[in-house]
Amino acid sequence: MTLIALLDGASVFVFALTGGLAASRAQLDIIGFLFFAALTAVGGGTVRDLLLDRTPFWIDRPSYLLIAASAAIVVFFTAHLVESRARWLTWFDAAALSVAVPAGLAAAYGTGVGSAVAIIMGVLTGTMGGLMRDVVANEVPMVLRQGELYVTAAFVGAASGVLLAPTLGLVAALSVTAAVTFLLRAGSLAFGWRLPVYKARPPRDRQS
Amino acid sequence: MTLIALLDGASVFVFALTGGLAASRAQLDIIGFLFFAALTAVGGGTVRDLLLDRTPFWIDRPSYLLIAASAAIVVFFTAHLVESRARWLTWFDAAALSVAVPAGLAAAYGTGVGSAVAIIMGVLTGTMGGLMRDVVANEVPMVLRQGELYVTAAFVGAASGVLLAPTLGLVAALSVTAAVTFLLRAGSLAFGWRLPVYKARPPRDRQS
Amino acid sequence: MTLIALLDGASVFVFALTGGLAASRAQLDIIGFLFFAALTAVGGGTVRDLLLDRTPFWIDRPSYLLIAASAAIVVFFTAHLVESRARWLTWFDAAALSVAVPAGLAAAYGTGVGSAVAIIMGVLTGTMGGLMRDVVANEVPMVLRQGELYVTAAFVGAASGVLLAPTLGLVAALSVTAAVTFLLRAGSLAFGWRLPVYKARPPRDRQS
Repeated sequence: MTLIALLDGASVFVFALTGGLAASRAQLDIIGFLFFAALTAVGGGTVRDLLLDRTPFWIDRPSYLLIAASAAIVVFFTAHLVESRARWLTWFDAAALSVAVPAGLAAAYGTGVGSAVAIIMGVLTGTMGGLMRDVVANEVPMVLRQGELYVTAAFVGAASGVLLAPTLGLVAALSVTAAVTFLLRAGSLAFGWRLPVYKARPPRDRQS
Repeated sequence: MTLIALLDGASVFVFALTGGLAASRAQLDIIGFLFFAALTAVGGGTVRDLLLDRTPFWIDRPSYLLIAASAAIVVFFTAHLVESRARWLTWFDAAALSVAVPAGLAAAYGTGVGSAVAIIMGVLTGTMGGLMRDVVANEVPMVLRQGELYVTAAFVGAASGVLLAPTLGLVAALSVTAAVTFLLRAGSLAFGWRLPVYKARPPRDRQS
Repeated sequence: MTLIALLDGASVFVFALTGGLAASRAQLDIIGFLFFAALTAVGGGTVRDLLLDRTPFWIDRPSYLLIAASAAIVVFFTAHLVESRARWLTWFDAAALSVAVPAGLAAAYGTGVGSAVAIIMGVLTGTMGGLMRDVVANEVPMVLRQGELYVTAAFVGAASGVLLAPTLGLVAALSVTAAVTFLLRAGSLAFGWRLPVYKARPPRDRQS
């Protein structure tokens, strides 16, 4: 329980930083920063908790909202100092993804669901907050960026943890999940690691 | 309970008007009007109810759906008469926001959550229906409009109500919430009231 | 129960095909295909189950996830063979809609809700998965395509089933729902059947 709380707390803080950065790119006011920080920070875990029929984690412990709010305030007063907000957003998002995926796994294990569902919960907890941020902010969702490992990093990380949990124990397996997720995402960003994408043929008949 | 029902009913009707106006701007047919009216009208309250583990309010009382449907039909046959649909949409949305925020607060108080969570429920009930409408209709979400008080109006209104409820009683506090939310939003629309936005520096590296 | 499972299974498979086609249009990798296939395939039924306070159907029976995954893999290796992916996507979506609407109705009947709510559940189960797919993939949502019957097909299909269930029995009524939904949607696509849309006057004041 404490482990979930820690992982949730860390992912809340770092996802809230990315929400604040998205708000800074949209040039919102301080309450807009709080809104995006909170949406991004608790979005993924809330989807997970609704699906697993748990009380959303921030309703049980509203202190998570304070964590998200302080991250928003930090970004509001410091984002102009950094050189490239998109770059910071991307890397913070990678860090948050890497703690949110094991947080999702841990919560799923606590409810006794099977392996496949646990993996899904890890992926959803990791990706849904950022997806909501990007859809609401009218940015291209990270899941759509071609030639980057994003959902893939979350999926392989979650699957590694589920595979290793019986032999390593839960805590060590969750660490593996975090490490694998971050390594794949970071390697993709830094070195261009990628899976083959669907054969690029120009869509002849895109209707819009 | 009756108070929540009244506030929910009023916000359902006025939000449904805005959903109908969004459908008219997208030039949909009558069922498209019903779809957008219902999505906007019950979206925020449904999110609130799912988070609080209550039965969504329109499942318990399907008459809300009739309210939303009649608003959709009214708009379908009258929207061409008005001069500026975007302007009507914005002002109806302001009115709906001002009743939906206290409706969210009232529902939250009924489940015994703390102050911070109650404020969030007020803000979510007020903003989520319109956000769904704008995201699905491919309009710029109101929460992203620079230099307007929107989430801010909902937040300050909800916080005022939570602060005053112990001394004024719930009904008076909810009236304050509605009044403060509407005044801030209307002042922002009519007189340009605003908070300082994040320092406008052109984003040098927008990736899309 | 078995009937719901069958309908859910069929709609999962066909919606997953459309999710895979959307992923192919966005040129994602295989995990991107799995993500979009799963989102589209279980999105509508998950919304339905959360609203009805049922355990999401794929958590109870994770084999649905395997169905979605196999559809994603099929599309990943065959989508380049087809002439017009947008056209296949549209027609598969029509087929999936036609089985998902009765699946939603059936699930709603199982929980004892009234007629209006049952119709809504049918419409939501049919449309929400595709809507999530389109919003996340940055495609124009099918619900917004002018002059096509989409929500209308789902709505009339669901309403027919609800009207006929008392006399025909549930299984026959669900077949009527599937047939009516498909006929209206297919007639709209093939022959341009449509309802009158909102009087087309150019929006003079579109703010964006």
